[in-house]
Amino acid sequence: MPTPERFSTAQVLNVLERFFLIDCGEGTQIQFRKFKIKTGKLNHILISHLHGDHFLGIFGIISTFSLLNRKHPLHIYGPYKLKQLIDNFLSTMDRGIGYEIVFHALSYNGFELVFEDDKLEVYSFPLRHRVPTCGFLFKEKIRLRSLRKDMLDVLNIPIKELHGIREGNGFTDKEGTVYSNKQLTYEPPKPRSYAFVSDTAKKEGIVEYIKGVDLLYHEATYAEEGKKRAKDTGHSTAKQAAEIASKAGVKQLVIGHFSNRYKNLDILLQEAIEVFPNTQLAIDGIEFSVKAENNRNQ
Amino acid sequence: MPTPERFSTAQVLNVLERFFLIDCGEGTQIQFRKFKIKTGKLNHILISHLHGDHFLGIFGIISTFSLLNRKHPLHIYGPYKLKQLIDNFLSTMDRGIGYEIVFHALSYNGFELVFEDDKLEVYSFPLRHRVPTCGFLFKEKIRLRSLRKDMLDVLNIPIKELHGIREGNGFTDKEGTVYSNKQLTYEPPKPRSYAFVSDTAKKEGIVEYIKGVDLLYHEATYAEEGKKRAKDTGHSTAKQAAEIASKAGVKQLVIGHFSNRYKNLDILLQEAIEVFPNTQLAIDGIEFSVKAENNRNQ
Repeated sequence: MPTPERFSTAQVLNVLERFFLIDCGEGTQIQFRKFKIKTGKLNHILISHLHGDHFLGIFGIISTFSLLNRKHPLHIYGPYKLKQLIDNFLSTMDRGIGYEIVFHALSYNGFELVFEDDKLEVYSFPLRHRVPTCGFLFKEKIRLRSLRKDMLDVLNIPIKELHGIREGNGFTDKEGTVYSNKQLTYEPPKPRSYAFVSDTAKKEGIVEYIKGVDLLYHEATYAEEGKKRAKDTGHSTAKQAAEIASKAGVKQLVIGHFSNRYKNLDILLQEAIEVFPNTQLAIDGIEFSVKAENNRNQ
Repeated sequence: MPTPERFSTAQVLNVLERFFLIDCGEGTQIQFRKFKIKTGKLNHILISHLHGDHFLGIFGIISTFSLLNRKHPLHIYGPYKLKQLIDNFLSTMDRGIGYEIVFHALSYNGFELVFEDDKLEVYSFPLRHRVPTCGFLFKEKIRLRSLRKDMLDVLNIPIKELHGIREGNGFTDKEGTVYSNKQLTYEPPKPRSYAFVSDTAKKEGIVEYIKGVDLLYHEATYAEEGKKRAKDTGHSTAKQAAEIASKAGVKQLVIGHFSNRYKNLDILLQEAIEVFPNTQLAIDGIEFSVKAENNRNQ
């Protein structure tokens, strides 16, 4: 149940100016305005599963995007049934919407590539909940090496060679002097990764998918005192989330999706920290960033 | 578009402990919690029309009522299409809901009785908007007269006579003394009435339905500067709302459904007050009451 302080699940992820909305509980568009999220570049909405607290905000967003005069396509990823709900909703709109919705049905069947461009890959992987539910893994691709501007200026390298050099080639100048790639380029920034683990009972099987990610969000609906209820309802405890983080060797853990029974979240944070110290709470409006590692000085 | 300060339309009406929810924009259940609205006795939801800002909150409420362990039926009144949307939503719920939904399709075709019990009648009447839209009129029935306890104590009237006296009978005691009904009873409180006028272009035709109501809510999306846009989009200006209130001779007017272009609502209130002085703004969380007139001293 959403409350004025804790709305339902919704996260905005910015990877190199590609914006993804991950889950979309009721009132997400209200939070957009509260936290001044610009939505013009938001082109992808991923829905982990069809429980109201993860998707009911999508209809208001679809409608508001049209009011805001959106013209470019919106890609929605989720269970096929969501497409029917959206089509049904669209059929109530007397003026329709002014942009295209491209629906991508998720299979909920193993590790699946759901989005790819030149810089990023997004995968879904199945979780263990009461209805088909998946998590998402966002992985930057290895970037081309960065050119050392100082060397370029000196060597007068033809433009057509630059791409090859960024891919790892060396260069031989007119005098026959050979320059190794290391002399001409810096290491590219290390690819970053983020995993979103939506509603799930503890599932060791996901560790292989999220191994070593820079940032892991894992649901933590209950404290240890609610462990039985967690299991019965297909949810995790904070400690279980931390155990998964630890086993997967992630760098940072964020826990969220807290039951309303916890007015104070300290117990959840404490129980997680005991197992995985680098844990933080997903409070409404909070931002986390994974900095690109600059390798120029290495 | 809802904002953190101005959510979409939703009103809770309490008539003699009968609770109605009138329209139900996104986030209504969040407002319930913010303004501490108890929902256990909320048995009737009326939806004026199928625009997102008037109905998208209903799915979260249906779902949350079940989480709150509701067992008694929920009556929903709206366009038939809403039933399909609800059925579709229910089909996504793995555990279903623990109570019955009784759907009442509105005809949008003239003045129609949609609810009646021993104390209250509710009618719908068509408005002028872009999709079929109706307003609602709530009318208390004339109540039985109130017994004068002082007289009852003295006269020792048999219990079986009391109902008749409340309906207007007199009483003759064993000595043959005749007491008129006026000696035995007070006037009942005057029946109160409330009219809800949802999204509509100015429509003089509704005046006959809402004549003399104690409290009128009328949408006022625009100020006079937006009069053309109001007409084009099937909405009213604050002044037009006041003109309707004036023509219908209502006692009190509340205006709402303000466009986001008005950060400050003074202009809307001013323009309405010039035509109908007893006007107030429907700010989120505000309460209005129509007191029962006590006729005992008349």
